[in-house]
Amino acid sequence: MIIAKVVGHVWATKKEDSLSGLKLMVVKKLSGGESFVAVDVVGAGIGERVLTVSGSTARRAVGKDDLPVDCAIVGIIDAIEVDKEARTKNE
Amino acid sequence: MIIAKVVGHVWATKKEDSLSGLKLMVVKKLSGGESFVAVDVVGAGIGERVLTVSGSTARRAVGKDDLPVDCAIVGIIDAIEVDKEARTKNE
Amino acid sequence: MIIAKVVGHVWATKKEDSLSGLKLMVVKKLSGGESFVAVDVVGAGIGERVLTVSGSTARRAVGKDDLPVDCAIVGIIDAIEVDKEARTKNE
Amino acid sequence: MIIAKVVGHVWATKKEDSLSGLKLMVVKKLSGGESFVAVDVVGAGIGERVLTVSGSTARRAVGKDDLPVDCAIVGIIDAIEVDKEARTKNE
Amino acid sequence: MIIAKVVGHVWATKKEDSLSGLKLMVVKKLSGGESFVAVDVVGAGIGERVLTVSGSTARRAVGKDDLPVDCAIVGIIDAIEVDKEARTKNE
Repeated sequence: MIIAKVVGHVWATKKEDSLSGLKLMVVKKLSGGESFVAVDVVGAGIGERVLTVSGSTARRAVGKDDLPVDCAIVGIIDAIEVDKEARTKNE
Repeated sequence: MIIAKVVGHVWATKKEDSLSGLKLMVVKKLSGGESFVAVDVVGAGIGERVLTVSGSTARRAVGKDDLPVDCAIVGIIDAIEVDKEARTKNE
Repeated sequence: MIIAKVVGHVWATKKEDSLSGLKLMVVKKLSGGESFVAVDVVGAGIGERVLTVSGSTARRAVGKDDLPVDCAIVGIIDAIEVDKEARTKNE
Repeated sequence: MIIAKVVGHVWATKKEDSLSGLKLMVVKKLSGGESFVAVDVVGAGIGERVLTVSGSTARRAVGKDDLPVDCAIVGIIDAIEVDKEARTKNE
Repeated sequence: MIIAKVVGHVWATKKEDSLSGLKLMVVKKLSGGESFVAVDVVGAGIGERVLTVSGSTARRAVGKDDLPVDCAIVGIIDAIEVDKEARTKNE
């Protein structure tokens, strides 16, 4: 699961029928900054940090296994607590 | 889901039988510029920005789970709206 | 399977219902340092080196195939023994 | 799907039984140059540009879902036509 | 499928029950040098070049689809023959 930030929206009129009604958001990986598109199932808003899943797991998250979806937002992050010592010490 | 741009076509006479009749397009990731080949199911044209899915999801998009396809174009993008502040501010 | 180090926790109140009760940890790849979030099923603690799996395998590890989970901690590493000669010699 | 070039062969006497009889070729990604091994199902030869699929899709391509195969050559490319303007213009 | 070299062992006492008895080896990608952990099903030894598979394919290789395994060694490489001209010429 990747921590990302919601940065925008995408609109596509001409699309696979089964994508109709899904909310497509542009998210940006927090570490690294790569952008991708995810289907939001938890009501996330611009600027929020979210938890995303990809691949076949994203279809499970959206709830129908035959959807053409490979990335989904599954949680809105309240807090991240990282232990500085553990993060920087290399063994 | 990756935002990409359609940049070309690929032709392969000698191929897996089940690929016959599928429209194979060369697409280029918008952020980063890597190129790959995707099966188009929405009638995309050269120069258009599209939404692509990969892996087992691409087989779902093309509609038959036993096709040797791992990337598909599932939407033609009308508009992308990115919040500048959200995109550049790092927390 | 990736060797990573547990460096923190993530909290998300608003999330996919099925994620409730799962322990979400921030882990950092030992080689490379990229961070991601994994569900812990073996009782790992901050600072420990762990074995993680991703994709559909992570759902198997957590034990329910319809969970929106794509990364899991499946072992706590006691020891890593690397043969220096094998590692550095390039054929 | 990735465009790659066939550059060599791999031999492995000691292997998973179900790999017996499969033709293992070394292929090199056309953009980027990374090398990997793919099972050839279309009769590709050294120097040819091919279309490869990976992951669970490769098992479908080889035709048996329980094979330990995660990359396959599914087409021999006759021609690639890329629109120069579309490829270089960034929006 | 990735060509890698076996460079070490990993031990984990506290782990998912179903991992018990599996041989966990540290392998290093031949091109690039990234390290990861793979379950050995062919009796590979330190210093040998091996063929690895990942994702759902690795579970097939180990023989049980519900194992928390996403990388496996499926062959010991005897020889790699690469055509120099094909490898270096870019079209």
